[in-house]
Amino acid sequence: MKVMIMGMDGYLGWTLSMYLADRGHDVCGVDNMSRRRMVAEIGSHSATPIRPMEKRLEAFKKAFNKELRFYYGDLLETNFVRLLVKKEKPDCIVHLGEIPSAPYSMIDAEHCNKVQINNVIGHNNILFAIKDHAPNCHLLKLGTMGEYGTPNLDIPEGFFEVEYRGRKDYLPFPRQPGSWYHLTKVHDTWNLMFANKIWGIRATDVMQGVVHGLNTPQMVNDDLLTRFDFDEVFGTAINRFCAQAVIGHEITPYGKGGQTRGYLALRDSMQCFTLAIENPPDEGEYRVFNQFDECYAVNELAERVSKVAQEFGLEGKIWNIPNPRIEAEEHYYNPDMKHLPNLGFKPTYTLEEELRITIPKLMEFKDRIEAKKHTIDPKIKWAA
Amino acid sequence: MKVMIMGMDGYLGWTLSMYLADRGHDVCGVDNMSRRRMVAEIGSHSATPIRPMEKRLEAFKKAFNKELRFYYGDLLETNFVRLLVKKEKPDCIVHLGEIPSAPYSMIDAEHCNKVQINNVIGHNNILFAIKDHAPNCHLLKLGTMGEYGTPNLDIPEGFFEVEYRGRKDYLPFPRQPGSWYHLTKVHDTWNLMFANKIWGIRATDVMQGVVHGLNTPQMVNDDLLTRFDFDEVFGTAINRFCAQAVIGHEITPYGKGGQTRGYLALRDSMQCFTLAIENPPDEGEYRVFNQFDECYAVNELAERVSKVAQEFGLEGKIWNIPNPRIEAEEHYYNPDMKHLPNLGFKPTYTLEEELRITIPKLMEFKDRIEAKKHTIDPKIKWAA
Repeated sequence: MKVMIMGMDGYLGWTLSMYLADRGHDVCGVDNMSRRRMVAEIGSHSATPIRPMEKRLEAFKKAFNKELRFYYGDLLETNFVRLLVKKEKPDCIVHLGEIPSAPYSMIDAEHCNKVQINNVIGHNNILFAIKDHAPNCHLLKLGTMGEYGTPNLDIPEGFFEVEYRGRKDYLPFPRQPGSWYHLTKVHDTWNLMFANKIWGIRATDVMQGVVHGLNTPQMVNDDLLTRFDFDEVFGTAINRFCAQAVIGHEITPYGKGGQTRGYLALRDSMQCFTLAIENPPDEGEYRVFNQFDECYAVNELAERVSKVAQEFGLEGKIWNIPNPRIEAEEHYYNPDMKHLPNLGFKPTYTLEEELRITIPKLMEFKDRIEAKKHTIDPKIKWAA
Repeated sequence: MKVMIMGMDGYLGWTLSMYLADRGHDVCGVDNMSRRRMVAEIGSHSATPIRPMEKRLEAFKKAFNKELRFYYGDLLETNFVRLLVKKEKPDCIVHLGEIPSAPYSMIDAEHCNKVQINNVIGHNNILFAIKDHAPNCHLLKLGTMGEYGTPNLDIPEGFFEVEYRGRKDYLPFPRQPGSWYHLTKVHDTWNLMFANKIWGIRATDVMQGVVHGLNTPQMVNDDLLTRFDFDEVFGTAINRFCAQAVIGHEITPYGKGGQTRGYLALRDSMQCFTLAIENPPDEGEYRVFNQFDECYAVNELAERVSKVAQEFGLEGKIWNIPNPRIEAEEHYYNPDMKHLPNLGFKPTYTLEEELRITIPKLMEFKDRIEAKKHTIDPKIKWAA
């Protein structure tokens, strides 16, 4: 299958490109390398010493004897996206090419607007390019479980049967996103539903949980590692906790730590994407997959990380710090996750097993984390 | 009260500026005059011969001995909006400064993106400016009844009590917008709810029906008329039908004509806005007002316009033409409209009475409509 990865240089994009090529798919990808610039802008870097794209491609070819095709370019350029899709006519586009950070979007008006324009318009350009030049292409778009927020109801996969004043309808589940970034994902979801309705674009809309970990079968040497962010802006819960433990920094859940979310190991995220790609939606179908393994409260995660860190001789001290975000710190949380298991998804490892891979690998890069440890504690506040 | 009107040059903006100033409010406004350029771009013009802003201001001063302050500028410029709100510190901002056309947004990718960026980012800039420089300011934002789409349920005002799998919550009502333009209004609504949540911005989110008509008490001479669009892109149902009748063009409902929407006379739109402005939300409150007078199916409107047109010696022939849009042409429609009547809203005239004002006034501008009659029939298609 010919697959095009938008955001090939990212945490998920690079990992998925290798994963799919290794499975025999014909993989090409696009990136404007903006993630590297944004992480530099906020004064940090990846814990793993990631190579320039050229070197990544060479290293992959050397290790797997397979070519990944790369296009440098910006999804905001309508005609670039048009031309690219026209030239490649992919069977599937995996759209991972968005700015993924809630705190980055909360810095100020300029960052809010940058994230909203980048994400919404890049996605629109893909929709129009598919409509005009690859109408049968399956769009696998990355959303987030954060689109739903934390309602006092079970969270279905995208839609729900609702009764109101004695009448019934099957409607999109209400979204309650918690940052300007999360809002872009909701805007994308609404835009995609509309494109599906008027043009019949076949799409899988993935509401993914928080991804963690550093290892997939294709990362056979350090030149093939994906990026690993640990700063307050681009680092996410489990990964940041691991990096904190590695340098002897306290593990810092925000606030009361009762915030509960779905989590997923990097290798299982790859497994899920692959299931969706290899089992595409029907012609004209729009489907929503909730994509995570288990739900954990943040305090629970901190404890798990602490426990495994201690196995490796690290202190793993936990310290709940004031929450820079405005969010419920104790709430009901019960999302459905049925579609992917129905396609065969099975988690590879338990959380502890995965942490036993992540933490020692990260310990190899302790100096790189140390060098940027001032970027870990949260300075960006929701209500500033 | 000091009121700032975003989009002062528009159909609603100009009318509201005069209306509020006449009531004794201190009114200033902003526009980038882009509506005039867009209507020219699609080859049309306003049926009414609207004056340049400078002349409008002079004419208003002459007639009412009151000053309207005008700022030329673009809401996309973050710092312009910031500075403006900092300088004026309005008690209320009425945000009418968005591109209001569904067909315009459906022309192609470039127009879709233009509308989405213009509307979403302009609105974001207002939110940040209020937060930083006028935190107590009431934001009255113009949304549309079209955000809700046509669900098979009653439509509440913004939120509903929902029960799902035995649990209850009070949630935003699901939106199902029908064009890239309508989507911007949903994006704005979501962004505003979030700004209210994190910063406590007090806001009235107006889900307005389709506005029609050409006369308010302040339009005492033709230099003070507001614009009146009749082309396929910027003309809306009743107004376009009236213009068609005036030049002997068939009145053309799209498709089966069972599409039902809420409608509101221009003078009553002013009445509603004024009620919201003079009865602001509480500190930290976000409220949603559905704003319309009566619901009509498009065929019904065509018949009403035809009947009144005949009273003025016009033929008023009706011809249902193929629907360029993708939308339900027969559906349930029962939106709530309680908040504004609770504040005292009473429709001024019946639809027929209002049409008896609009049609003869438009007949004075028959030649101007004739000159651009090629812009009336729909060429922009949803599934093109």
